[in-house]
Amino acid sequence: MTQTLPATIPASLFEQRADAIVEAARELSDLGWTPATSSNFSMRVDDAHAAITVSGKHKGRLGRDDIMLIDLAGNAVGTDARPSAETALHTQIYRRWPAMQAVLHTHSRTQSVASRLYAGEGVIRLQGWELQKAISGYHSHDSVLEIPVFPNTQHMPELVARVDAWLEAGKPLHAYLIDGHGIYTWGRDMAETRRHLEALEFLLACELDLKRLRAS
Amino acid sequence: MTQTLPATIPASLFEQRADAIVEAARELSDLGWTPATSSNFSMRVDDAHAAITVSGKHKGRLGRDDIMLIDLAGNAVGTDARPSAETALHTQIYRRWPAMQAVLHTHSRTQSVASRLYAGEGVIRLQGWELQKAISGYHSHDSVLEIPVFPNTQHMPELVARVDAWLEAGKPLHAYLIDGHGIYTWGRDMAETRRHLEALEFLLACELDLKRLRAS
Amino acid sequence: MTQTLPATIPASLFEQRADAIVEAARELSDLGWTPATSSNFSMRVDDAHAAITVSGKHKGRLGRDDIMLIDLAGNAVGTDARPSAETALHTQIYRRWPAMQAVLHTHSRTQSVASRLYAGEGVIRLQGWELQKAISGYHSHDSVLEIPVFPNTQHMPELVARVDAWLEAGKPLHAYLIDGHGIYTWGRDMAETRRHLEALEFLLACELDLKRLRAS
Amino acid sequence: MTQTLPATIPASLFEQRADAIVEAARELSDLGWTPATSSNFSMRVDDAHAAITVSGKHKGRLGRDDIMLIDLAGNAVGTDARPSAETALHTQIYRRWPAMQAVLHTHSRTQSVASRLYAGEGVIRLQGWELQKAISGYHSHDSVLEIPVFPNTQHMPELVARVDAWLEAGKPLHAYLIDGHGIYTWGRDMAETRRHLEALEFLLACELDLKRLRAS
Repeated sequence: MTQTLPATIPASLFEQRADAIVEAARELSDLGWTPATSSNFSMRVDDAHAAITVSGKHKGRLGRDDIMLIDLAGNAVGTDARPSAETALHTQIYRRWPAMQAVLHTHSRTQSVASRLYAGEGVIRLQGWELQKAISGYHSHDSVLEIPVFPNTQHMPELVARVDAWLEAGKPLHAYLIDGHGIYTWGRDMAETRRHLEALEFLLACELDLKRLRAS
Repeated sequence: MTQTLPATIPASLFEQRADAIVEAARELSDLGWTPATSSNFSMRVDDAHAAITVSGKHKGRLGRDDIMLIDLAGNAVGTDARPSAETALHTQIYRRWPAMQAVLHTHSRTQSVASRLYAGEGVIRLQGWELQKAISGYHSHDSVLEIPVFPNTQHMPELVARVDAWLEAGKPLHAYLIDGHGIYTWGRDMAETRRHLEALEFLLACELDLKRLRAS
Repeated sequence: MTQTLPATIPASLFEQRADAIVEAARELSDLGWTPATSSNFSMRVDDAHAAITVSGKHKGRLGRDDIMLIDLAGNAVGTDARPSAETALHTQIYRRWPAMQAVLHTHSRTQSVASRLYAGEGVIRLQGWELQKAISGYHSHDSVLEIPVFPNTQHMPELVARVDAWLEAGKPLHAYLIDGHGIYTWGRDMAETRRHLEALEFLLACELDLKRLRAS
Repeated sequence: MTQTLPATIPASLFEQRADAIVEAARELSDLGWTPATSSNFSMRVDDAHAAITVSGKHKGRLGRDDIMLIDLAGNAVGTDARPSAETALHTQIYRRWPAMQAVLHTHSRTQSVASRLYAGEGVIRLQGWELQKAISGYHSHDSVLEIPVFPNTQHMPELVARVDAWLEAGKPLHAYLIDGHGIYTWGRDMAETRRHLEALEFLLACELDLKRLRAS
């Protein structure tokens, strides 16, 4: 892949973003959260651009060349590589929240199963877990953390509209699940985004375990 | 093991196939999908030959010498090594589909348990999972992916006949399970075959999890 | 972080403690027991001081600089770093039992789920497991090992009082769980404390598995 | 530990056995099957002696010095190290079957939980799994593989008598479980013994999974 950068973006800036994405992708792949070339990852580059994984590669074996530049309308910039079909879900976050710097979308077994199980209710409500405090803005296990579960579709504008509708209803949003699919979460830097993702995977797994055990 | 090659097969070609099989075997063994010397792996070499693992070795510790040449009738070629008892299931794939280049048979706990659970129905029907799109030819989570489960037998011609019967009924086939045993899947190169296997293991595990949770 | 030591504490002593904590933290992080920067670890330094992890770091990537000195009232000594909010639970152990040299608090999925499940009863009673013998003072699988489960709170003095009340009732205590949170355990050196933690994680996991299976 | 060898045992022979035990122990520890210093391992040295792990060490960090010589009555030979309390269960195998060269006793979560679940029946009957063929002497998934489950006791002669009684009843025996404890298995060399152990762990885990799922 050849990536030509706009004059306003130094090569060192793009490479820093690409390397951070490659490292996160490798670690998340090692956890088994990106099966069979699924999942996609991005970081903001500036007010108008983001770096994102190209479509369809094994996420444990990415190199700098597998990261491409897009504008916040989701168009490739300076490359003829094809961004992920789900790019619109990344750019939506960057357009809405100028402070957000990274978006991670993974596809773990826990995320996929939880999304199927709660798709009917359209939301998973987490309460009583100390680890909810790992989500920025939560300070007690007594708070309620709501993760919406949106219906899956191969048509991205429908999903973008679902996210918009949730936010326009005035509800907080730190992550969402897509039915039978996976999770999206974001943060003000890669470390916060990773912490959010790790906490959400843990909380979903605990919630499923508890559901099984309470039925025993 | 001494392997003498026919004049039409360059040593470099056979070695490339052997090395690709050894690498796949080591990675699948590390995942725990080849317990207690089970599982077998092959790649097409040319129109009339394939390379396949010899019988009974620990799949995480194979070397080039543990891969042997066979013809598509399943006979050893240029070696007195003994191919796996299940060789006939590999050659069946290569004979039927000239485009298929690799066949992987593993034996994970998920595969074994799923096969027992669905043996009565004779098929597992997967629907609603985004990862079905990792199987070549599937473009939506809404499609139905059917994996047949054939009865186990120590007599290979019976299994070959089951596979033939399924195909002659005009049904698509990308993989099959054998009851109490494991999975067979294949593809147009090793990467596609690995992606199929990884996706199928994930989908079977999700389906079992969901079944348990829906009963809770 | 700059750590100035009191004249009575040799640098080599503090560094030995810091390195032992860093090593334990890395190994426990690798097991997945410290998700999303949770968990905290300490070792006694002398009669009046302990070394403890600073607040909020990834526990798999700590260095010597992430370990700070505190007195047994929980105050930072010779540093302006902030100790964990849960420091009071560590110093309580060191004040009560002069022989105790290490305290480990982790946050595994098994620990979190078990604590939720048994919070109503306020205790988990383990009996019939050979591995109970890994807890110092237990010599038979026939003994009963009680692990109290205390309600979670963001106010540490409440938890300190719960621990005191349990001990004042004359009951043995080798570890406790906090509801929706994790486990605390301790020992006369790091090896004993690690053995306690590993045995308790194993016993809780077995107990949950058995509960699920007996309901089948 | 100082180990003096009888004149009839070459140092190289003892060291070969010690190294093989250390390697197996490290690999089984990495799998999590030897929690909290549990488990013990041995190999036959000659007609009258075996090498066995000393009591109470972390099984992932053994060295040659943690392996000691015993006679087949279970007495330490040429060392004042203390063999495991369960030594009598190892020597029983070597006395009964001259062909047996290795005995492995592990303590995985699956083994512990399965033993509790089937302790009432006193036996686990496995049938229909292809991997039963990994146990020497089994050639079909249709055969029945019986694993007895003996009551746990801290008094070894009781267990020795249980094993003798099973064998005197004329039943085949390739492994046994002890209630709430773990598994013993053996073989004609370390590779066969490892294959038996790996297959039994897999089969027990599959059987528990299937039990849970059939109840769903």
